[in-house]
Amino acid sequence: MTDSLHTPVRRALLSVSDKSGIVEFARELAQRGVELLSTGGTYKLLKDAGLAAAEVSAHTGFPEIMDGRVKTLHPKIHGGLLGRRDVDAEVMAQHGIAAIDLLVVNLYPFEATVAKPGCTREDAIENIDIGGPAMLRAAAKNHAWVAVLTDPADYATVLAEIDAGGTTQATRFRLATKTYALTSRYDAAVSAYLSSLHDDGTRDSFAPVLGLQFDKLQDLRYGENPHQRAAFYGERDAEAGTVAASTQLQGKELSYNNIADADAALECVKAFAKPACVIVKHANPCGVAVNESGIREAYERAFRTDPTSAFGGIIAFNRELDAATAKLIVDRQFVEVIIAPRIGDDARAVVAAKQNVRLLECGAFPAARRPAFDYKRVAGGLLVQDVDTRIVRDDELKVVSRRAPTEAEIHDLVFAYKVAKFVKSNAIVYAKDRMTIGVGAGQMSRVYSAKIAGIKAGDEKLEVPGSVMASDAFFPFRDGIDAAAQAGITAVIQPGGSMRDAEVIAAADEAGMAMVFTGIRHFRH
Amino acid sequence: MTDSLHTPVRRALLSVSDKSGIVEFARELAQRGVELLSTGGTYKLLKDAGLAAAEVSAHTGFPEIMDGRVKTLHPKIHGGLLGRRDVDAEVMAQHGIAAIDLLVVNLYPFEATVAKPGCTREDAIENIDIGGPAMLRAAAKNHAWVAVLTDPADYATVLAEIDAGGTTQATRFRLATKTYALTSRYDAAVSAYLSSLHDDGTRDSFAPVLGLQFDKLQDLRYGENPHQRAAFYGERDAEAGTVAASTQLQGKELSYNNIADADAALECVKAFAKPACVIVKHANPCGVAVNESGIREAYERAFRTDPTSAFGGIIAFNRELDAATAKLIVDRQFVEVIIAPRIGDDARAVVAAKQNVRLLECGAFPAARRPAFDYKRVAGGLLVQDVDTRIVRDDELKVVSRRAPTEAEIHDLVFAYKVAKFVKSNAIVYAKDRMTIGVGAGQMSRVYSAKIAGIKAGDEKLEVPGSVMASDAFFPFRDGIDAAAQAGITAVIQPGGSMRDAEVIAAADEAGMAMVFTGIRHFRH
Repeated sequence: MTDSLHTPVRRALLSVSDKSGIVEFARELAQRGVELLSTGGTYKLLKDAGLAAAEVSAHTGFPEIMDGRVKTLHPKIHGGLLGRRDVDAEVMAQHGIAAIDLLVVNLYPFEATVAKPGCTREDAIENIDIGGPAMLRAAAKNHAWVAVLTDPADYATVLAEIDAGGTTQATRFRLATKTYALTSRYDAAVSAYLSSLHDDGTRDSFAPVLGLQFDKLQDLRYGENPHQRAAFYGERDAEAGTVAASTQLQGKELSYNNIADADAALECVKAFAKPACVIVKHANPCGVAVNESGIREAYERAFRTDPTSAFGGIIAFNRELDAATAKLIVDRQFVEVIIAPRIGDDARAVVAAKQNVRLLECGAFPAARRPAFDYKRVAGGLLVQDVDTRIVRDDELKVVSRRAPTEAEIHDLVFAYKVAKFVKSNAIVYAKDRMTIGVGAGQMSRVYSAKIAGIKAGDEKLEVPGSVMASDAFFPFRDGIDAAAQAGITAVIQPGGSMRDAEVIAAADEAGMAMVFTGIRHFRH
Repeated sequence: MTDSLHTPVRRALLSVSDKSGIVEFARELAQRGVELLSTGGTYKLLKDAGLAAAEVSAHTGFPEIMDGRVKTLHPKIHGGLLGRRDVDAEVMAQHGIAAIDLLVVNLYPFEATVAKPGCTREDAIENIDIGGPAMLRAAAKNHAWVAVLTDPADYATVLAEIDAGGTTQATRFRLATKTYALTSRYDAAVSAYLSSLHDDGTRDSFAPVLGLQFDKLQDLRYGENPHQRAAFYGERDAEAGTVAASTQLQGKELSYNNIADADAALECVKAFAKPACVIVKHANPCGVAVNESGIREAYERAFRTDPTSAFGGIIAFNRELDAATAKLIVDRQFVEVIIAPRIGDDARAVVAAKQNVRLLECGAFPAARRPAFDYKRVAGGLLVQDVDTRIVRDDELKVVSRRAPTEAEIHDLVFAYKVAKFVKSNAIVYAKDRMTIGVGAGQMSRVYSAKIAGIKAGDEKLEVPGSVMASDAFFPFRDGIDAAAQAGITAVIQPGGSMRDAEVIAAADEAGMAMVFTGIRHFRH
């Protein structure tokens, strides 16, 4: 790099879609003696504000043609952006190319164009910006001399640098980097749109070309294991109520496994409207409880499901963390992460006594999670699917047994089914009074998941008789029901849909159990 | 769209980095009366081949300046690409803008530029192509009239269409779509490079902006569950020996869960050099065996681990599938997918008797898996890490017990440890004679995984005494070892690294067990 520390700005070209702050910024530039070039709506805005700006067409001596399709695609503009101020000085002078030291261009998001109701294919194509990205890419390439602004948030920095003598290499480099991320994202949106179009104008849910872009939130010490390097990335506009949008208030640096488990815990606790607590270990809920009276009691009972696993676990709440609950946790157990929509000041003070505990405030949960895609990596590819946002409602339950569940059983069945959704398949959950009694996770056959749920309940001396059972998928045989009946399970919730449903229902009826079908399977691997 | 079915090609602009087939293509165009415009190396090549091409600078009347930084960024070129042949005809005539009906431009992959040894930051920046992407994007926008070729593979199609009267709207649209995918990918590479640069010229493993691009391989009927939509995407150059690079020879359409499980099975079976079989159910290996004598015996023994789970499983081999093994499988069990590097013709004929069985040929495994990133989706973000490619070697084992393992035990320990790597955490694997005896998967505490491995071995009447045990992470307490000793386990493999290693080793010594540490943890969630 041959440039000096500060590169003066003598001429700027402004052409923006997002006009916030542009007049003020242009005025500041003008006051510093910067010559302004502009075009279209931006030009009109600057003129109306009484600023002396030259139109690009006047500058190039070539008219804007084809309804604006060709206006800046001219050697005087691109030479002004791309010219190296040292080796190209002579050729610039020879062709009357004036250096443009600052480019201010932002693009109307293509996603927003095509999301507009009634946007036709022709509208969309007409809206693909050609001149803007061309200038952005040219200016960014020549960042040794040119500063390129794509975001009003950077106007102030550049003004301050101009006041100090000119833009700095460090800032110009940062802005150039930001620019290519923008042009890449813009064309990914165009590509996704065009490739997903059907002949009838409808769009394919899964475009032939999938382009994803994430911004790094933090480097991680390592991945799932110490020999794997790792980093945590976020969506550009990550929704509140997620780990990605959380603020860490205290504690050690989050690890890869902390983030994955906190996500599992938080997504599970969001499934409950009433005060709830979810404790996760190794990607599975090992204790869940709901309590009308509040999260303190919910934590107390979630912990009782499996105190061994809860040791070193991740604890999530769907209510503000209060001091009493915080104290109960930190006095009793080793905990890796506590996450809640809000952390009260008193609670924060309590947890401060244990400086290693990672305390995350994730913000209020949105009313409904935004539709999003789930990704599962396989060697050489990626499986993409809708995030499983289905949560069973009481009114969806179909009673298939002779005995209908009692009201208390219905509450427990729905509770257990919500938990089962977040337990790795095959998942069996025993629950009573909206507290997990036994969680059978991750088995290759359903009968072992049921066995484990029973064994765990027994080991913790939790009473199975009177509990309900949830299964994330249908029972292929009656054996699972027979075993549950023997253990004292009184009601069962499952999707139904097996070839042997009749046999399975008969087993329930023989034992006087209530059985409901949901019609919704919740595999999660 | 106002265009007719076939749009004639009268003028073409050619400027390519990948010159394969360009001279032949240009000659074909010239023979059809197409006027050729060109620049730089492509122009030289065409002239040397005796073709009548005009240089872009002659066409625009403006010289190529700034070492080629500005040559095509001119209204005569961009007007020629962007002009609508109907409404802009008059303005084109007025400014002497000749329509360019075909653009042939491909970009030198930026990843290849920066991968060159000794490529400096200045080299990289100088290599960012500005003119090429600008023309590509302009031509693609105007695909109602202009065809844009970025890939020699499409030359023949376009020639055939020209012979039939001109390029078709369908082809031009497809080519335009392909173009934006290319420009997006190009800028994603620039963005990743620039954003990952450190001041000292080294690069960050995890760039601040992560851009990913995948191509759809197939739509899927649904995702993990029927209420989730899904599709399967592949990397542009998916490695052989992966599900993404596989050919399906017969059977029902692959489901989301089939693909995920086939991937798990295939990655696991790759860990073995000798003939091996892996059966996967619900993302976990439920039976694995290695046999010198071949895959038939390996399958026979893998099946014996857990016949219940193997029902409806995914079976992977690391050798060509032969007819005898194929027959053994389809005669005995319901199987969802069989995958192997090659499927013999005889084997294919055997499986054809069961038309529902999905038969996948994945191609020979590469010697070592290419370094790649693993992605784990969390709400609002993405966890990124190195794929866990570490496989423990015999010479890495550290004997920590008084008794050293026998040679047979070492074989079984290494075998069991490779399997444990692919079992969801916490993972405990019992093995004997390189066959799994019990697999304890996906538990929130290690002691339950050990319990399950033992219970499953007992249920299948497999003999635990004389078996070895592998654990994917260290034992936090001696209880796991004591229980294993009581069950008759003679040797244990684990990473080591617990605060209580001394206590754990003492437990092994008291029981006369051999214990080895690997120093490598294999969490997999």
